[in-house]
Amino acid sequence: MNKSIHRVLLAAPLFKGLSEQQLDEIGAIAIDKPYQRGESIFMEGDEGNGFYIVAEGQVKIFKTSLEGKEQILHIYGPGNPFGEVPVFSGSRFPANAMALVKSRILFLPRDAFVRLIAEHPSLSMNMLGELSMRLRQFTVQIENLSLKEVPSRLASYLTVLAEEQGSTDRVDLTISKGQLASLLGTIPETLSRIFAKMSVQNLIRVDGRQIHLLDMAGLEDLSVAGKLEEE
Amino acid sequence: MNKSIHRVLLAAPLFKGLSEQQLDEIGAIAIDKPYQRGESIFMEGDEGNGFYIVAEGQVKIFKTSLEGKEQILHIYGPGNPFGEVPVFSGSRFPANAMALVKSRILFLPRDAFVRLIAEHPSLSMNMLGELSMRLRQFTVQIENLSLKEVPSRLASYLTVLAEEQGSTDRVDLTISKGQLASLLGTIPETLSRIFAKMSVQNLIRVDGRQIHLLDMAGLEDLSVAGKLEEE
Repeated sequence: MNKSIHRVLLAAPLFKGLSEQQLDEIGAIAIDKPYQRGESIFMEGDEGNGFYIVAEGQVKIFKTSLEGKEQILHIYGPGNPFGEVPVFSGSRFPANAMALVKSRILFLPRDAFVRLIAEHPSLSMNMLGELSMRLRQFTVQIENLSLKEVPSRLASYLTVLAEEQGSTDRVDLTISKGQLASLLGTIPETLSRIFAKMSVQNLIRVDGRQIHLLDMAGLEDLSVAGKLEEE
Repeated sequence: MNKSIHRVLLAAPLFKGLSEQQLDEIGAIAIDKPYQRGESIFMEGDEGNGFYIVAEGQVKIFKTSLEGKEQILHIYGPGNPFGEVPVFSGSRFPANAMALVKSRILFLPRDAFVRLIAEHPSLSMNMLGELSMRLRQFTVQIENLSLKEVPSRLASYLTVLAEEQGSTDRVDLTISKGQLASLLGTIPETLSRIFAKMSVQNLIRVDGRQIHLLDMAGLEDLSVAGKLEEE
């Protein structure tokens, strides 16, 4: 196998948990493709028949509106995979990809990758292990970053909602907890922990989508404290 | 298959991307185990011969120091998997697990799970797709949360390092970029983007572990701005 392909795979976080031999197996199915600056890699709606890893250069992932306006979603550099989510999930590409500069990109065909996983289940076990570990680390990181401001944003949201619903002792969430987490800038896992923490502090009691407001003054303090901090 | 096992699997984020049929395949290898309050589930150092999903109740994951002091790492409730990282990666359990209350826990034996993946590669493709998608979402979330404060923390770190190294125009990072990201409370992906942004703003130029400080006054402003904001 091409030595430089091995080097690219070795540096890719997606394959971090893999052994040298497993990297060789992936390397054997990888196709090294050169792209010119401005060259299209795939288009929105194309079938996801393989995913990509940037070896050299830079790639932009973008959507184009009906009026032709371009919105850049991501810019990826060496080591970054792209297109892997739709390809793993078996769906079409949800956006366009184009080389921003002269680039070298590895293409991993879906069929060959599926065969590889069937023959070597340890390969997918290791990938699942690595992705699961990073997910856990990221969850902790988001929690650390969120715990400062999200409780006050949540308190503020609940007090506004109480006013809207003309109640002082309970509100009904009109969106799912997943949507609420996203609205407050966190993830469901962390929102659950914040709900639990505020329940222990006797500020609220959570009953499905119904939130009992046990200490309106406390919630207002928390909500104002956050606002002052942000200014 | 037990209908209640199917319900637990359906609610578990780890299996979110899977079809009904794939959930049934996993359900067929899952073992439903009751645990009493305070009962041990596994001990640090045990071989990871399977992973777990909380069906009902609550589980604590903890370490015990040589002096017998307990440190709780996580508390998991319904839908949460645990032990899956070492089991996917083929290592031993790095901590202890114990039922905090009377619980029902699904056990998924490693051997049977590996066989399942080998027979149905689409199952692991879907799991890889789901985990990759969540990783991407979490990356965006961390970036959104980090962009407010991390640049000023980084500027502050660089100015302190410059003083330590007796230089005003460049510093040598003494830790890896991964460690630096963690020190600043973010992830390597976001730190790279912040480096890129500060380079575009002509504050710094990054050359491996060597950071050229192009605008010391600008860096000091950024570092102080962050501190003021935080107070």
